[in-house]
Formats: sequence, structure tokens, C-alpha cells
Amino acid sequence: MINPNEALNLIQGLIVPQNVQKIAIQDALGLILAEDLRADRDFPPFNRAMMDGIAIKNIALNKWLIEDIAFAGEPQKQLSHSNSAIEIMTGAPIPKDCNSIIKIEDIVFFELAGEKWAEYVGKDLLNPGQFVHAQASDCKQNDLILSSGTKIGPVEIAIAATIGKSELSVFEKPGIAIFSTGDEIVAIHEKPEAHQIRSSNSAMLEAALRSHGFSPTVAHMKDEKSVVEQSLESALAIHEILLLSGGVSAGKKDFIPEVLEKLGFKPIFHKIAQKPGKPLYVGNRADGKLVFAFPGNPISTLTCFWIYFLPWVLGNRLILSTIAVGNLPLSNPKLDQWLPVKINGEQAETLKNNGSGDLIHWKFADGLVWQKAGSTDQSLPFFPLRP
Amino acid sequence: MINPNEALNLIQGLIVPQNVQKIAIQDALGLILAEDLRADRDFPPFNRAMMDGIAIKNIALNKWLIEDIAFAGEPQKQLSHSNSAIEIMTGAPIPKDCNSIIKIEDIVFFELAGEKWAEYVGKDLLNPGQFVHAQASDCKQNDLILSSGTKIGPVEIAIAATIGKSELSVFEKPGIAIFSTGDEIVAIHEKPEAHQIRSSNSAMLEAALRSHGFSPTVAHMKDEKSVVEQSLESALAIHEILLLSGGVSAGKKDFIPEVLEKLGFKPIFHKIAQKPGKPLYVGNRADGKLVFAFPGNPISTLTCFWIYFLPWVLGNRLILSTIAVGNLPLSNPKLDQWLPVKINGEQAETLKNNGSGDLIHWKFADGLVWQKAGSTDQSLPFFPLRP
Repeated sequence: MINPNEALNLIQGLIVPQNVQKIAIQDALGLILAEDLRADRDFPPFNRAMMDGIAIKNIALNKWLIEDIAFAGEPQKQLSHSNSAIEIMTGAPIPKDCNSIIKIEDIVFFELAGEKWAEYVGKDLLNPGQFVHAQASDCKQNDLILSSGTKIGPVEIAIAATIGKSELSVFEKPGIAIFSTGDEIVAIHEKPEAHQIRSSNSAMLEAALRSHGFSPTVAHMKDEKSVVEQSLESALAIHEILLLSGGVSAGKKDFIPEVLEKLGFKPIFHKIAQKPGKPLYVGNRADGKLVFAFPGNPISTLTCFWIYFLPWVLGNRLILSTIAVGNLPLSNPKLDQWLPVKINGEQAETLKNNGSGDLIHWKFADGLVWQKAGSTDQSLPFFPLRP
Repeated sequence: MINPNEALNLIQGLIVPQNVQKIAIQDALGLILAEDLRADRDFPPFNRAMMDGIAIKNIALNKWLIEDIAFAGEPQKQLSHSNSAIEIMTGAPIPKDCNSIIKIEDIVFFELAGEKWAEYVGKDLLNPGQFVHAQASDCKQNDLILSSGTKIGPVEIAIAATIGKSELSVFEKPGIAIFSTGDEIVAIHEKPEAHQIRSSNSAMLEAALRSHGFSPTVAHMKDEKSVVEQSLESALAIHEILLLSGGVSAGKKDFIPEVLEKLGFKPIFHKIAQKPGKPLYVGNRADGKLVFAFPGNPISTLTCFWIYFLPWVLGNRLILSTIAVGNLPLSNPKLDQWLPVKINGEQAETLKNNGSGDLIHWKFADGLVWQKAGSTDQSLPFFPLRP
């Protein structure tokens, strides 16, 4: 049986199945770019004023006659006399024959014989070229500015907009089918019999995936081998990834691994030395489709999904901060444990609970800490549960 | 002029305008619950097997005749003879007259005279009640299990599903209207003249908000007072928050604060001692509506949005980790600085750039570090820019 670190490494080695798709730029944040983007012109496209103030040519003076005013959005102006100045706003093209900007805070305007003048009242020496964002200083026309494979953050969105890309080619999110199993399960809107319970895993998985922009389908399967086989086969025709909950442990109806084998899947691993979530099964097949089959207890499904599946499918590594933990139980000698904790100032406190079937006590948890088998550490990796 | 810490504190004191709305449970992750939820029955609703194995009454024995089998999803069974056992699967109700479970790993089954027997081969002493998740041990029927005001994480989704809430009352996300200003700006799909540039701030703001489940409207306004006033007034009739970019600095057409005053807004603050983003304006009015007016340079808008607006509107505090920074420039004596950095192993390196109008060099940034005015610290708070 492998440990959680080995499982995380094996999963990191799996390729998220993705096709290329064209989407609106407004929906692209967090996705991976699937095309190279080149500058459609120089950036900045013109010598651009970085400050509100005056544009000048002769920096040896300390007073200039104002001969015009240049607003952003107007075509470039022209300085008529080399000793005068043009008032200018941030974002406007620097007038022809000007080369420097003096910012408005360093100027006093005054009138003389019906004409407007500016006097320099700043403390610093004037530098030729100051506050001019020079044409092509950020990049030249045709430069490669974003490569295929780049993760699209806010800066990438702004760059793509700047060069006129209202649509982007991206690697689309894989299609995911969620299946719950277990004959004790009824749907959320149904009234359960005494021996039944409502489905909670599917709702949790669906909500988490939707909040990250996926559009999963959700269904329940009866605990019958033929039903399970048929359901999974149909789902695989249109989805890249199956998420299952239940049916992977040691019970008489736990035939998920057997059915998956029949459908051509090979386990990457089955079972991790951890609690909760020991029976986790991860498998793939030759066409690149993948299955994550979570143990059915709600806390087991939740832990396996948030630790092993979600970071991977989002293209990230699992990143955990470290936190000091109070009232830690003794570690288990053989199994790593994921313990629910409440944050209390700089510290975390472990929470009492009735095991992996107990949702109710977990509502007090701010996150999970990871206590390794046999460890005596009092500071542990922390995973937040409130997104 | 206030500093960034003072600005963050003032913003934290503002109430995010929210109405109550009923939504599907699958869309509720990350929102705030607006109703109390009570248990519709005991949890667990019956004494529930926590392991696959056998259910017994007499733990003094070490061999038991198997008289039946209990699957999850079947009505409760009844033990006929106090010395025998019923095979049982995780999730099944514990049979009447049984009180303990022995897990399958600790059992060997054998046949004797045509009947099936189980023998205990485990090492530990058997405890009465073991592996029974007792009815009502998590909570009792009618107990308050989630209070109004709770942030909905994955556990809350699962709990709500368990008690049959396919819809939840939540505080809905506020309606947001995004406006860009600046006569030099044309739309993404337009071809700019030499002195014009394409809108990039609106696309960035829209993408960021949509990735968090908001549905903002987007528009551009000409730099004319009457146009701006009319546009903002119409938007305020149906939106709770306005996000503006441009028009808040010292230029001749920077009349946004003046128009906002006319519309009944009072500034919470205008200007922060920081670079980029010094002219940031935040204001509100008596009916609870709010305006964040960002300076128009792309990096200024981006910094102000991600640091001041987004954490607040999501109901979070800005949380920054600390990172050691290489090749830090000298700090500015008067202004806090947000510097773009690239992560290199455990360290961050500051990136060269041409100021807050330079999007292109910022594409190399993994995030921003916050260098306080006059600081000589080499380890700085870090904000990641790749979600």
C-alpha cells in the first residue's frame, strides 16, 4: 500500500485530458492558453505621457509659454516653438518635438500679457525623457508576447485585450461525470425510509466543480454490476473523467474495480495508507480517460477529492501551509491521518468527531491537518476547507 | 493621505450590499447562508455499520454461526439467536439485538455441516459497541446544524444535501457595473488609430469577477461630464457597486470624484500613499451603494482591484504570505510600493518594468510584493497573481 506522498506524485504524473477550444476572453481566467499571441503593434504604440503636466523640449528653461493642450484620445500635436510647452494629460501622445514631461505637482501656472505660462517649482533636476513611456519600450510589433501553455491570469487577460483578442484558444476543461453508488442512497429531494440516507457526496462534488467552472453531469447507480457497467460505459463515450463515490472497499457489493477492469482501466493505485480515504482507487486507460473512485463515506470522499483530485485537475500542485496544532492525538503507527481542525488565532485545534461518516461535527472544521504515520510533529501541513 | 493598511481597514468596515436569494445547492459554494438549517431527523438516522464484517451480540465468543446478510439500503434485520452473527456491509443498519461489528479483515469464514461460520482471528480485545456509528451521536432531530451567516464550504453543502435542502437561501452576490473612461480607449474588437489603445481594464475586471461567480455589466463612457453622470445614474438604478477605471487623477478630464459627489456619494478615502494606484477613490452613499474608482493605468487598476476590492467583496480579509525577495530596489521614503516579482524556488526576484502602463513586462510576474515606505525588510508580504 502506498502512502499519500507517493499517491500525490503518481497523480501529478497523469495528464489532464483536454481538447482545444475557442472561448470569449471574459471566460478564460485560470485556463491554459493554447495559442501563441504576438503584438499587433508596438507597445506603447506611441510615445505616451505617464503623468498629467506639461510636455516640453527645452529642459534648460524654468518657464515656458503654454501654446496648446493635449488630451488622451486626440491625434498627436506639434510643438511650434522649441522654448514653449504643451499642457498634457496622462495617456496622450507626446507632441512632436517634445521629449520630456513635467508633472503638474511641480508646476505653477500664471498669466502674463494675456498668455498662459508654466513655471517649474519642483526640487529635482529635470531629466531629458522623464515621464515619457517610449514607443516600443515594452515590446515591438510582432514580438511573441504570450506562449501557448501559459496559465491565464489577470495580466494575460489584459494583454490579450490590448492586442484585440476577444476570443482565445484555450485547453478546455475536461468533461466530468459524477456517479454515486450505494442502495441506501436516495436523492436530495426524496424522503428517505428509516434505513436510507440522502445523497450528499454528489452534491458536494458538483458544487465544488461548478465553483471552478466545470459543468459535470451527476447520476446515481444501483449496486448491480450490469447497471454499473452500462452506466460507466455510456458516460465514457462523452466524458473524459469519471468521479465515483462508494463501492471500492471490501464489501460484497464493492465491485467497482472489477467493472473498471472490464472497461479497460488499469489501476494507477488502489488503497492509500491513510485515514480517512484508505480505499481510494485511481485508474486510467489507453485512450487517456481517467477514473477517481472515492470511498463512499462523506468525509472520505471529501478528503480524497480536495487533496488528490481538485488541485490536479486545475493544473496545480497541492500547496499546504504549516500550522501549529494543539491537542493532537497520538499518530497512527501505520496510517497517515487527515484530521479536522479549527483555527484559533495562530494555532489549530483538532476537533472531536465520530469518524468518516460524521458530517455534522466537521462543520466546525476550518480545514484538515496532515499527521503522518508515526509522526510526533506538533506543526503540520494545513489544508483550508472554506474556499 | 492614508497608507495601504489604513485603506484596507476602512474598506473592511464597509458592508457588502447583499439581498437574500434562493438558489440551487449546487451553486452555493463560497456564499453566505441566509437561513438556519435544522436536522430533519437524527444523524445517523439509525445505528449504522462503520465497517464491512459481521454484526454480533455476544462478544465473549470467538466463533459465530452466520444466519443472514445485511446490505446497505435494506431495512433493518433481526438476529435470531444471541450467539450467532449477521454478515454486514458498511452503511447498513445494525440488526436488532446486535451491538458490535467485527471488521472483515479480522475474520476467517469456514463451513461446518453445510453452514457458514465466522472465526475471530484479530489481535485486539473486542469492545462492546465497536464500529457502530450510533443513532443521533452526530446530532439529534431538530438540532440547529447550520446557522444563518455561515460561509458555505464543501461540508456545509454535504450537510444541506443530507437534510434534503436542494435549494438554499443565501446572500446573493451584489450586482456590479464596470465602466472604463478615457477618450483614447476603443473596444477589443476595434482597430485603434495611432493615438488610441484598446480597453484592457474592463476585460480584466470582467474576467476576474466572472471567475468568482459574479455577472457584471461592462460599458465605456466618453470623457464628458454629462455622459458620465447619466451613465452612472442609470447603472445605480440596478446595481449595488460601480467599478470605474480612469478619471480619478489630476488631469483636466478627471472629474469622476466631482460627478460622484453630485450623485450623492461621499469619499471613504481618495488617494493612498502607494505606487502604483495612488489616486484610488472609494466612496459610498446613504442607500448603501458603493463606488471603487481605480486609476486608469492597467497595472494600477489591477493592483487596486486584486488587493482592495476582490477580497472584500468575497467576504474575506486580504491574506498574504511572506517571501524573501532578491534584488529589491531601495524603498520609496513616502509611498508603499507593490512590486512585480517572479518566484524562483523559495525566493522571489523583482522584475524590471516601465511603470504602471507597462502590461507586457508584468506577464513574467507570479505576484506582487508589498514594500512599505522607508522599509529595509528583505522578506515581504506576497500576493499571487495566477489564480
